[in-house]
Amino acid sequence: MTEIASPDVALHLRQQVASREEGHGLPRSFYHDPTIFQAEIEAIWRRGWLLAGHTCQLSKPGDYFTYQVDTDPILIIRDDDGEIRALHNICRHRGMQLCQTEQGHVGRLVCPYHQWVYSRSGELLTCRGMQEEVDKSQLGLLPLHVEVVAGLIYISLANEPPAFEQARELMQPLMQPQGLERAKIAKTVEYTIEANWKLVWENNRECFHCNVNHPQYIKANYDHINADDVSEAVQQEMAATVARSEEKWSSVGLAATHHDTGMATFPDAEQNLWYSANRTTLVEGFVSETLEGRQVAPLMGDYPDADVGTLRLRTMPNFWNHSSCDHGVTTRLTPDGPRKTLAQVTWLVHEDAVEGRDYQLDELMPFWQLTSEQDWDLCAAAQRGVDSRAFKPGPLSTYKEYNLDAFFRWYLRQLSDYCDAA
Amino acid sequence: MTEIASPDVALHLRQQVASREEGHGLPRSFYHDPTIFQAEIEAIWRRGWLLAGHTCQLSKPGDYFTYQVDTDPILIIRDDDGEIRALHNICRHRGMQLCQTEQGHVGRLVCPYHQWVYSRSGELLTCRGMQEEVDKSQLGLLPLHVEVVAGLIYISLANEPPAFEQARELMQPLMQPQGLERAKIAKTVEYTIEANWKLVWENNRECFHCNVNHPQYIKANYDHINADDVSEAVQQEMAATVARSEEKWSSVGLAATHHDTGMATFPDAEQNLWYSANRTTLVEGFVSETLEGRQVAPLMGDYPDADVGTLRLRTMPNFWNHSSCDHGVTTRLTPDGPRKTLAQVTWLVHEDAVEGRDYQLDELMPFWQLTSEQDWDLCAAAQRGVDSRAFKPGPLSTYKEYNLDAFFRWYLRQLSDYCDAA
Amino acid sequence: MTEIASPDVALHLRQQVASREEGHGLPRSFYHDPTIFQAEIEAIWRRGWLLAGHTCQLSKPGDYFTYQVDTDPILIIRDDDGEIRALHNICRHRGMQLCQTEQGHVGRLVCPYHQWVYSRSGELLTCRGMQEEVDKSQLGLLPLHVEVVAGLIYISLANEPPAFEQARELMQPLMQPQGLERAKIAKTVEYTIEANWKLVWENNRECFHCNVNHPQYIKANYDHINADDVSEAVQQEMAATVARSEEKWSSVGLAATHHDTGMATFPDAEQNLWYSANRTTLVEGFVSETLEGRQVAPLMGDYPDADVGTLRLRTMPNFWNHSSCDHGVTTRLTPDGPRKTLAQVTWLVHEDAVEGRDYQLDELMPFWQLTSEQDWDLCAAAQRGVDSRAFKPGPLSTYKEYNLDAFFRWYLRQLSDYCDAA
Repeated sequence: MTEIASPDVALHLRQQVASREEGHGLPRSFYHDPTIFQAEIEAIWRRGWLLAGHTCQLSKPGDYFTYQVDTDPILIIRDDDGEIRALHNICRHRGMQLCQTEQGHVGRLVCPYHQWVYSRSGELLTCRGMQEEVDKSQLGLLPLHVEVVAGLIYISLANEPPAFEQARELMQPLMQPQGLERAKIAKTVEYTIEANWKLVWENNRECFHCNVNHPQYIKANYDHINADDVSEAVQQEMAATVARSEEKWSSVGLAATHHDTGMATFPDAEQNLWYSANRTTLVEGFVSETLEGRQVAPLMGDYPDADVGTLRLRTMPNFWNHSSCDHGVTTRLTPDGPRKTLAQVTWLVHEDAVEGRDYQLDELMPFWQLTSEQDWDLCAAAQRGVDSRAFKPGPLSTYKEYNLDAFFRWYLRQLSDYCDAA
Repeated sequence: MTEIASPDVALHLRQQVASREEGHGLPRSFYHDPTIFQAEIEAIWRRGWLLAGHTCQLSKPGDYFTYQVDTDPILIIRDDDGEIRALHNICRHRGMQLCQTEQGHVGRLVCPYHQWVYSRSGELLTCRGMQEEVDKSQLGLLPLHVEVVAGLIYISLANEPPAFEQARELMQPLMQPQGLERAKIAKTVEYTIEANWKLVWENNRECFHCNVNHPQYIKANYDHINADDVSEAVQQEMAATVARSEEKWSSVGLAATHHDTGMATFPDAEQNLWYSANRTTLVEGFVSETLEGRQVAPLMGDYPDADVGTLRLRTMPNFWNHSSCDHGVTTRLTPDGPRKTLAQVTWLVHEDAVEGRDYQLDELMPFWQLTSEQDWDLCAAAQRGVDSRAFKPGPLSTYKEYNLDAFFRWYLRQLSDYCDAA
Repeated sequence: MTEIASPDVALHLRQQVASREEGHGLPRSFYHDPTIFQAEIEAIWRRGWLLAGHTCQLSKPGDYFTYQVDTDPILIIRDDDGEIRALHNICRHRGMQLCQTEQGHVGRLVCPYHQWVYSRSGELLTCRGMQEEVDKSQLGLLPLHVEVVAGLIYISLANEPPAFEQARELMQPLMQPQGLERAKIAKTVEYTIEANWKLVWENNRECFHCNVNHPQYIKANYDHINADDVSEAVQQEMAATVARSEEKWSSVGLAATHHDTGMATFPDAEQNLWYSANRTTLVEGFVSETLEGRQVAPLMGDYPDADVGTLRLRTMPNFWNHSSCDHGVTTRLTPDGPRKTLAQVTWLVHEDAVEGRDYQLDELMPFWQLTSEQDWDLCAAAQRGVDSRAFKPGPLSTYKEYNLDAFFRWYLRQLSDYCDAA
């Protein structure tokens, strides 16, 4: 379902891609040009793998949730065999949107307009009132590609999506102990960010801005410290936490895999890597990304104790998750035009945890709620600035913005590949 | 005032028209493509006859109401001779909108900007402050075509609108007994439907959706029953009501003209018929389209008693009316972009009826208010579905959606004729 | 920063410019065509001088206010030397909007994103975290042209703005006695006018509409009286006030410079004059543009007494000011798309005046608040009218709308010059 670029569009895109100066940001057209935005929809959002949600949202057959990507209403449902399915959420008769709530449970999928009835895996079962000649076997709900990895549900709108296996190989073993399959959703907050989706990633891909803007986050993490400003004392502290992690956890596969201050490199344009997963130590005294660093909910998954650092997951173009011993936080992005991005932030805890007894939302949520909202404000102010005709992208810090450069190269590769396919 | 299609636009339209598969719905471009929407404005909305309102809204000279179609503010006014006039509601001086309220009464039309003064039929009478050379005879308000039939006011923005006479010949005798000229407006409700105007007609042109969605409507009518699901008992019941209607009313011209279950066929592409009128029996026990089927207001017009079935009127592209013995309900559509349609629903009763004494709004309104709002919700969900890139129009029921096919063929003929004229 | 018209655009503009009929208004395309609107942005708004605000808003170094023109956030700030600077309000690093409030005070300009630090005149002072090779001298904030005249701050987005000197020569001596440099802002009201910015000027350039629409304004002024309707009595009254003004004030340079009923001619297409300033007498009994004509605040500037008529300033495309002995009112326009204009109306009084003691807002504001809001309503109704496809510009009154003709000729010249430069 991806539209190929016309020669005019491909020419325009190539010119814009070529106009980026090495080591600098993207030219301003990338933040408002509707042609570029549409090309991104085709080349990235309708081509790659999108995090849709969590398997724990669909605990039994017939449970579903919905997700709108670009123009397309999508239904994610657990079928009678327990498989997760992704289906275009529109009736094959007149195109009616089938399931109209964010989540729910159905025995069969019945179109509210004329009651065509589909099974939970999308087959058309009955269509009362239609003539005999209608071939029901040709009128099942149209499927999308689905992959599930350790409790995460990915979908792709592409006819032939990229391979998923390497992503699974990396993510599955690192994620397994977190137990997201046995989680439940404690809270979901929906945000509208008044910024292009790339500005949200640019913000996510550096911690240069953390010192002043994220007072909570920097107490728990080493991401904001790079080669230019790391001290002997911090280096020793980090080395000590890593050594302790390896000693304690390497035998059970929970040792830290990211050993340095600063962020792990991601994404990778040369190898076209759109996925990332690592385990990182937290600052001494923190066992969870909470305001005080304390555990605030029951241990998740297979964790033997709380001191397991933080699991970080990231997949382009729409997902990241930071998970601690007691909870995980998923952010799912969806573009809504060149200047607007929807973000859904979801807090997960152990499926048996009971709110009020085992955890309190006002202890669970603030760390990432504050950090997220601080970022959305920065993104919106960045959008207002890059809209200016006076905007020319400045130099990136080689110390602190290496991942922006990585992101831009990955992103521009997607556009170039898209033009090559035209 | 209709713009002719450029060759590029005509080519695009012809391709889209040709892309429709026989016996199926319209391709998705018809529900969002701005070029097609603009072509519809030219080919249909600025060409045909539009129901503007009712003569009873303009009981005396100087009474007016306003109506905005596309970009054009329009004034409908009763002039000093009692004639209904439609005028472009803009001053010939600087283009100021003249009458700025939905309805009112004027002695003369005085522009609020610089007080150019027009008669109630649009002649420029005075323009104080202008030089002598100004030729007032050339600066009257610009008229639109108007036709009045049995209390309905039609306007056309076309230079040369289609013939109106056949429509009048059909509608006048059927409408006469309803007495809409001696009616008054009991209530008007304005709706914004989040759907393309064609989806509203598609919804209107079949009762396939009625069983589940219109519990009130199906109690009173036989429209939802077709050849595939009619029972012997219903056929006999319908035949009996028709026979009784003919026996009782044929001598005074009030017998049912539509004799079958299911809807009367409309519109007609081959004969290019854009108007329809018939009298239909209601279900045994119903004398009015009200929740209980009871008469809830004084008899209208010339009706000798309540048992007169229902009068149904329909004209493309913007009007339908269902009238019972005691009240009539008019729906007027106006497109507002490819994904939005305004609907004005108006309840009419006998002009002498007094609210609270002769009728109660909570008895008069629910039948059509519920039915209308049920439909608007369906239309909005259909729009969300046909926006999907995965949407492909499915097969239409030959039993139940024959009028959709009729509508699509009529509609596509208008676009083709428009291209032919280019 | 002005984009040159493409050949296609230039051709389209020339055709539209040529389509205007002499002595009539502008054709309707000028009020909604997005290509024409964008050309105006380039040819007029990004080329000319725009009133940004008043020096009294920036009383000490580090005081700033912000102003958004088209896509560009702009910062106006008083630097350490006391000079007024206009800077693009975006960081040279990632384009972040620097100052995010309408006004404020800063020691240094610190980007909230990554804390690049700029001096109050825009030099990049520090950029912690960047590599050594970064050349700070090349990364100062980008400046705009600024001119200050008697307390008014003008900016231009052009690379080479028009000469400012003749404007200063006219305005400076007339404005000097008003003392706007020693004023303070008593109140600012922000309006969104639902009309094209030219309709706002068309409204401003004639007092043909005043008789009926501005009952307050016409009590104080002679603008609405022209050759066609002036009486002997009014002529004598005006001559008497002018003579008294000259006798009393010519020695100190405060005599009226506009001597006639009706408005002073402005703008001037032939000489390309975009600025106007004059002193005019008020009606006998009025010493201030207030509801009763009374002085309602302390004398401003150098005025020896209250009887100084009214000072009127106007510069295309975005500014006018009417000042009385005791207060001044500035209107600043900013276009926001073809059908919307932002207006900021600011009331100024002597800097030492204290609200509640020396003046009351409910005495100071009504005259211009009422008059302004009356005009915005007229403009919005005019927009609704000129949007009609039936709109054809009518004849202008040679008695009363000579300044509309002047405005149209000036405006069309700007578009033509812009095409010539392409």
